[in-house]
Amino acid sequence: MPLSNMDFEFYESEDPIWNPALMTIPIPGIRKMVNLASQLDDVIHLSIGQPDLPTPQNVVNAAVEAMQRGQTGYTMDAGLPELLESLAIYYGERYNRTLNPENIMITTGATEALYLAITAVSAPGRHFIVPDPAFMLYSPLIRMNGGEVTEIPTRAENNHQIDPDEVIDAIEPHTYGIILNSPSNPTGTVYPRETLEKIVEEAAYRGIQIISDEVYDHLIYDGKTYPSVLSCCSDLDHVMVVSSFSKTYSMAGMRIGWLIGSQGAIKKLRRYHMFTTTVANTPCQWAGVEALHGSNDFIHYMLDEYTKRRDRLVELVDQTPHLTGYKPEGAFYLFPSLPEGANGTNVALRLLKETGVCTIPGETFGSSCNNSLRLSYSTSMENIEKSFERIIPWMEQQDFD
Amino acid sequence: MPLSNMDFEFYESEDPIWNPALMTIPIPGIRKMVNLASQLDDVIHLSIGQPDLPTPQNVVNAAVEAMQRGQTGYTMDAGLPELLESLAIYYGERYNRTLNPENIMITTGATEALYLAITAVSAPGRHFIVPDPAFMLYSPLIRMNGGEVTEIPTRAENNHQIDPDEVIDAIEPHTYGIILNSPSNPTGTVYPRETLEKIVEEAAYRGIQIISDEVYDHLIYDGKTYPSVLSCCSDLDHVMVVSSFSKTYSMAGMRIGWLIGSQGAIKKLRRYHMFTTTVANTPCQWAGVEALHGSNDFIHYMLDEYTKRRDRLVELVDQTPHLTGYKPEGAFYLFPSLPEGANGTNVALRLLKETGVCTIPGETFGSSCNNSLRLSYSTSMENIEKSFERIIPWMEQQDFD
Repeated sequence: MPLSNMDFEFYESEDPIWNPALMTIPIPGIRKMVNLASQLDDVIHLSIGQPDLPTPQNVVNAAVEAMQRGQTGYTMDAGLPELLESLAIYYGERYNRTLNPENIMITTGATEALYLAITAVSAPGRHFIVPDPAFMLYSPLIRMNGGEVTEIPTRAENNHQIDPDEVIDAIEPHTYGIILNSPSNPTGTVYPRETLEKIVEEAAYRGIQIISDEVYDHLIYDGKTYPSVLSCCSDLDHVMVVSSFSKTYSMAGMRIGWLIGSQGAIKKLRRYHMFTTTVANTPCQWAGVEALHGSNDFIHYMLDEYTKRRDRLVELVDQTPHLTGYKPEGAFYLFPSLPEGANGTNVALRLLKETGVCTIPGETFGSSCNNSLRLSYSTSMENIEKSFERIIPWMEQQDFD
Repeated sequence: MPLSNMDFEFYESEDPIWNPALMTIPIPGIRKMVNLASQLDDVIHLSIGQPDLPTPQNVVNAAVEAMQRGQTGYTMDAGLPELLESLAIYYGERYNRTLNPENIMITTGATEALYLAITAVSAPGRHFIVPDPAFMLYSPLIRMNGGEVTEIPTRAENNHQIDPDEVIDAIEPHTYGIILNSPSNPTGTVYPRETLEKIVEEAAYRGIQIISDEVYDHLIYDGKTYPSVLSCCSDLDHVMVVSSFSKTYSMAGMRIGWLIGSQGAIKKLRRYHMFTTTVANTPCQWAGVEALHGSNDFIHYMLDEYTKRRDRLVELVDQTPHLTGYKPEGAFYLFPSLPEGANGTNVALRLLKETGVCTIPGETFGSSCNNSLRLSYSTSMENIEKSFERIIPWMEQQDFD
């Protein structure tokens, strides 16, 4: 069929000005749900991606004092020297390894650190391995820079644990990176040390970069020790670790994250960082210094609080028809599945419209989990109880056959 | 000659893990000079790229109050609604045109806004036009995404004004964007309305995006009205304007900038922004609301102060052998040239080592201006005087023939 004017107009309407690479960025599923929710009354949110507790007062005070003594200009490009130094000491003690300030760069939240790490390695012809489900940033950023992705599916029946042999089997000659995220958003799963060691060792042997998103590294329940990739690798040549203050100290809006890597990697990425955002917020970097040096009471309080909520949420999911849950060991999410073949997006939309409970559909986090829902327990116990008073009777009426 | 092991090792040492696109990012000339200066005693900096005045107290107070009332979580992805609303009203009044909050997105400084705007349009096979000298971000970001650049040289003899006909003559069938920066960093040049109108009109006619970096839009001397691209275009379909609070209210370390464009462009770029940094710093967005609503006394004070410094710097450059100056009308930079063929980088390095005056070599800002130096007058009058007490006798001893 020859091209008609119609076809030409259709092509024109495709916004030809934009870099086609931006097409890899999905329409954000979370935003869609939250926007719809904002038009409804009496909504209970199980959709929240940041702590619901206030920032500790000593941390707020440190940012206030920094501003009042004129700390409102640029820091050095890698970040505030006092924060780099504090992070090096903090990580050195936590994981019993030597880190220098030159191994660290401060960024605008963990998001910028992930953006820099992933887009600095991805390029046409390069292959990456990503868990599925996973935080929705990873695969689009890899693809945006021309890389291709193999997703390794995980299942609620198996606590969404990843099989290290499946990861290793997926390695190809052109594999350049493996993305890990433990505790995971959206599943709350914490990978055991053996899983990490096996993957990290194989990656180092093959010269593949591990990019480890560890933003929930302090939200670890049941008194367990957190296995960071930093405690599972002999050197940093093939490892980049990302974290932030957002979840640990309820500082999401202060936008202070960081990237840890070899000194060579940090040197390279600092230059890239100068071109994306220049530097991170100065007064809030001072807040970060205080967070690392001040009391840990806030973290303990938060862990106690979130443990109770998690335990109750696990019980409630168990009591809900059609939902398969598990006991997550970290973060503040549970990612139960609906019966196979159920359309999680339709369920989430109907649940919101018909009961006023806002969850996030599984397909936001990957292609293998369309029959799942992400539930966040970063909300009050009262809200958790009330939401299931609506969810359970609604689910009883559903038929997924 | 056949490949030897030596060649292979050389290739290996090239950091094969990094995306080759990062090679477009230059080693930062400013950082090199400032690092060298930090190892010397008694240095006077004419190298500063941020205001030397303290942030106005009402602005600091607004950020403090925001933090104290718990404004430390994420804002909406486009930014704090109160700030978007305030900016829409502010721009609407300033340039007498209607803007909606949906025409604006808040970013981590102007840098992130420029990063998003440029990399969202640049792609392989696309051509861009950039003034030379220019802020060192533009061309590397275009090239990093596969675009190619034509630089339009400007000269100190002509106040570094750009010739709009030269810009229009450089347009090719595959030209996608023209970058403008008025007042300019590094030259302080303000483009007159006629220049902008001619370029903007031609670009709109040909469907080419204008990306206008207007971060110095309040640093306009001699009582002139600032010609923004926003006041020179009929609609926003082919225009993206970037600015920030950094230079106007001495808020560089608070990292709040923004991008103004068509609602379609903002919608597209908001999604990209979610993947680069998520959102900007929340308490400092509240500082921005106060900056727009509070008194303008700070701006008037700063303009008075910088006008005096500029006038004195112009005199001093005139009295300096081998330097050709001019009278810049905006920002806080002067970009005098040395005799043709002089190596500005060697001059800047020797000047620093032999006199302790730190300037930035011209080649940092483009390929046509290696015989220039950037002088910043964002420093005290005393420092300006003292630096030329060193520069003038040193220059008297030089021979550039």
